Amino acid sequence: MSDLEGAIDRTVDVAVVGAGMAGIKAALELEARGMSVCLLEARDRVGGRLKPGHIAGHKIDKGGQWVGPQQKLLLAEAQAQGVEKYDQYNTGKSVLHYKGAIKNSNSELPKMPLVSLLELQRVVSKLDKLAYTLPADAPWTVRDAEALDSQTFESWIQANVWTEAAREFLRIVTRSLFCCEPKHVSFLYFLDYVRGGEGIDVLTGVSGGAQEAKFRGGAHQITEKMAAKLTSPVVYDAPARSILQHDDGVVVMTDRGTVRADRVVIAIPPALASRIDYANGLPVHRDHLMQRMPMGTVIKVHVAYDKPFWRDKGLSGMAVSDTLACNVLFDQSPEDLSCGILVGFFDADAAAEYTTQGDNARRNAVIEAATQFFGQEAQNPIDYVDNDWLAEEWSKGCYVAHMAPGVMTTFGAALREPCGRIHWAGTETATQWQGYMDGALQSGIRVAAEIAEQRGLRMAAE
Amino acid sequence: MSDLEGAIDRTVDVAVVGAGMAGIKAALELEARGMSVCLLEARDRVGGRLKPGHIAGHKIDKGGQWVGPQQKLLLAEAQAQGVEKYDQYNTGKSVLHYKGAIKNSNSELPKMPLVSLLELQRVVSKLDKLAYTLPADAPWTVRDAEALDSQTFESWIQANVWTEAAREFLRIVTRSLFCCEPKHVSFLYFLDYVRGGEGIDVLTGVSGGAQEAKFRGGAHQITEKMAAKLTSPVVYDAPARSILQHDDGVVVMTDRGTVRADRVVIAIPPALASRIDYANGLPVHRDHLMQRMPMGTVIKVHVAYDKPFWRDKGLSGMAVSDTLACNVLFDQSPEDLSCGILVGFFDADAAAEYTTQGDNARRNAVIEAATQFFGQEAQNPIDYVDNDWLAEEWSKGCYVAHMAPGVMTTFGAALREPCGRIHWAGTETATQWQGYMDGALQSGIRVAAEIAEQRGLRMAAE
Repeated sequence: MSDLEGAIDRTVDVAVVGAGMAGIKAALELEARGMSVCLLEARDRVGGRLKPGHIAGHKIDKGGQWVGPQQKLLLAEAQAQGVEKYDQYNTGKSVLHYKGAIKNSNSELPKMPLVSLLELQRVVSKLDKLAYTLPADAPWTVRDAEALDSQTFESWIQANVWTEAAREFLRIVTRSLFCCEPKHVSFLYFLDYVRGGEGIDVLTGVSGGAQEAKFRGGAHQITEKMAAKLTSPVVYDAPARSILQHDDGVVVMTDRGTVRADRVVIAIPPALASRIDYANGLPVHRDHLMQRMPMGTVIKVHVAYDKPFWRDKGLSGMAVSDTLACNVLFDQSPEDLSCGILVGFFDADAAAEYTTQGDNARRNAVIEAATQFFGQEAQNPIDYVDNDWLAEEWSKGCYVAHMAPGVMTTFGAALREPCGRIHWAGTETATQWQGYMDGALQSGIRVAAEIAEQRGLRMAAE
Repeated sequence: MSDLEGAIDRTVDVAVVGAGMAGIKAALELEARGMSVCLLEARDRVGGRLKPGHIAGHKIDKGGQWVGPQQKLLLAEAQAQGVEKYDQYNTGKSVLHYKGAIKNSNSELPKMPLVSLLELQRVVSKLDKLAYTLPADAPWTVRDAEALDSQTFESWIQANVWTEAAREFLRIVTRSLFCCEPKHVSFLYFLDYVRGGEGIDVLTGVSGGAQEAKFRGGAHQITEKMAAKLTSPVVYDAPARSILQHDDGVVVMTDRGTVRADRVVIAIPPALASRIDYANGLPVHRDHLMQRMPMGTVIKVHVAYDKPFWRDKGLSGMAVSDTLACNVLFDQSPEDLSCGILVGFFDADAAAEYTTQGDNARRNAVIEAATQFFGQEAQNPIDYVDNDWLAEEWSKGCYVAHMAPGVMTTFGAALREPCGRIHWAGTETATQWQGYMDGALQSGIRVAAEIAEQRGLRMAAE
């Protein structure tokens, strides 16, 4: 509050907290409806969980990056902003590192014993089928909600999957999608995510799936280009500290001053939203829900080589491990092949372990993984960069919040329910592709329509 | 910050945040070691989850109240403060309301089919035995920690208990101890609580157990009397908003000004502690732990009658139901029997449901329960009062935080680990009787010793 240079003191129709993709989309949609907006951002940049970076002189995404053909909202937005996509490199064999042994495979499915593979196909199909029974707008109302929500996904795996390789594959899937272990997540929440992402094959797939393509110049620039189209520019370095509702509006106090508005959109993850001081309280279900939606844990890494040497060996650069801390790698080489880049993740418990070890230990673990997967050439990188999302002050984790057992059935109905003049956006509130950029866009569109409707109703009543 | 009347601006050895039993005990112990202390409290009273109240002109505890013979720290503290205890009334039959039918029983154990009773005894003994294998200071290191922590207690019940009555009893126990459903809590966390509370019989028992006695004039006054012995009086209406650590100390910003100290003790529940702005961050394991320790949900109710009519019928006033929203009642009549009072609870999902219904609906549900348990005389109360702990701004729930599956094994080691100059107290950090007043005292004693040791080490190094 003391930094009066650049202090703001505004009165607008709608204040929006958080200039990630959800908040920017909400602001654009509100402005398109003729409302004045003040978009507040804690960081000194837009994008939230999308973040620009560089390695070996090339632009990379240190946050979200991929897009799949099902993600119509994101594809349309990227096109509208003039950001082109190109395919994830997916030529050659992928690598499965399982029980310490390396297997190469022509398919995206890991090479595993036939009996495991058969079981896995059966289990994946069963999970998908179950997921599609959930109603998108209220998964907590499905007939067996209590039973599904009373167990962890790990419990379900142990009770329903019999071959060790199929079990491990489902654990890797959970880590990759939620950045948590199967022990952390409710089976109902897992299923709802599978429903939102159109099935496990789509969620985990490259060609035809959620990792099919990425954006030239980085996904982050979509949010930059969107933000550039706002009538009223983003207010940076302005974390919302408290929100007061009164009869005629809301007052949002930030580190840079005060915004008065008719309504406010909170477009940040629940764990961050819980840290705002709601001066006259929130409905208790909302408060308790926010106590129960922790962020996943992930460290995204990039390592660069003078060339993509794995391609010469007929390998795609895609690799998955059941044991190595850096357990997933993809090819992230620039299109001009002026160097070779791998992108990978420490996720779930491996991220919780490596967050405390420092970036040198992480670098060593990544090089070790790349060496095991692709050979000795991996020992000599020309550059390395990582992003520890656990330690990001204004995200508190990534990719997405998850719910432990029982949370969805007890408090789920509070997820999108406006609290007076406070409206909730962010990818966690989406009914499709929650956890993804596409879900963020959906939430921004939905919240703007919700506010327009409320304001229309209010005007009609006056 | 703007309320400069009564503003504080102090420099002390140790700032303590939260004047519940843990914070006051820490402050007393620190003062006894010669340190200067500033004890900051968000509310206008001490006691935290202990709260004074009245019904029909009699003092009651709207928060924690009982003490058992195992709780040596609490017994000693009460004695030191000159607060006497008296036995919970426990003469006559208790009532079990199960599957819509009423059964009276001479024992504290509910009357149930013999096969269920036999199974229950076997299961309780098995749970106790398992609980005692956990190391008190690091339950997450027990040999089977991963397996125990990967499932909810509900999953364990379904896989290990076969009779419906025994299952329901364990669910009622969970609701009564944690104020959450078995679906919400990790089996490992459940076991650790059982260990800390010296077994399920002790935790749930009246005579010889954790509900054996209560305090004349209310448990809350123990904290008042403790606070009165502080050299430096409690600073009320002073919620800590941000904490900055620097090389030479900490700066605690509150709504009433600033306290500078060598160290700070945070003696509030994790969900509240997470809402303080740690200006230069916290170790990520601590932050992520606080994202994952939600408070239980409970509404404590009192209803008064012109006399304790149930006693005339040979009933103790103790009743338990598997289906009614107000699912536990005890006799809370004043010792002079000038009226009859019942105390009860809506807990876990029943509390989440009734928090939104208003106190009239709760009053009706309590009277309905008392009528079913004890007869038509319950229809005509002379007074009613309840306390919705979900809605308490400075508790955010009660009795205690719990951990969902996976939290203890991934982040448990951060529970008591000091973060630089920030030390953690509160009943959740206790290794014995966590969740109870006794655990709060233990945490206050432990944290004061921890700080004395650290300061001693520092002085030795200088």
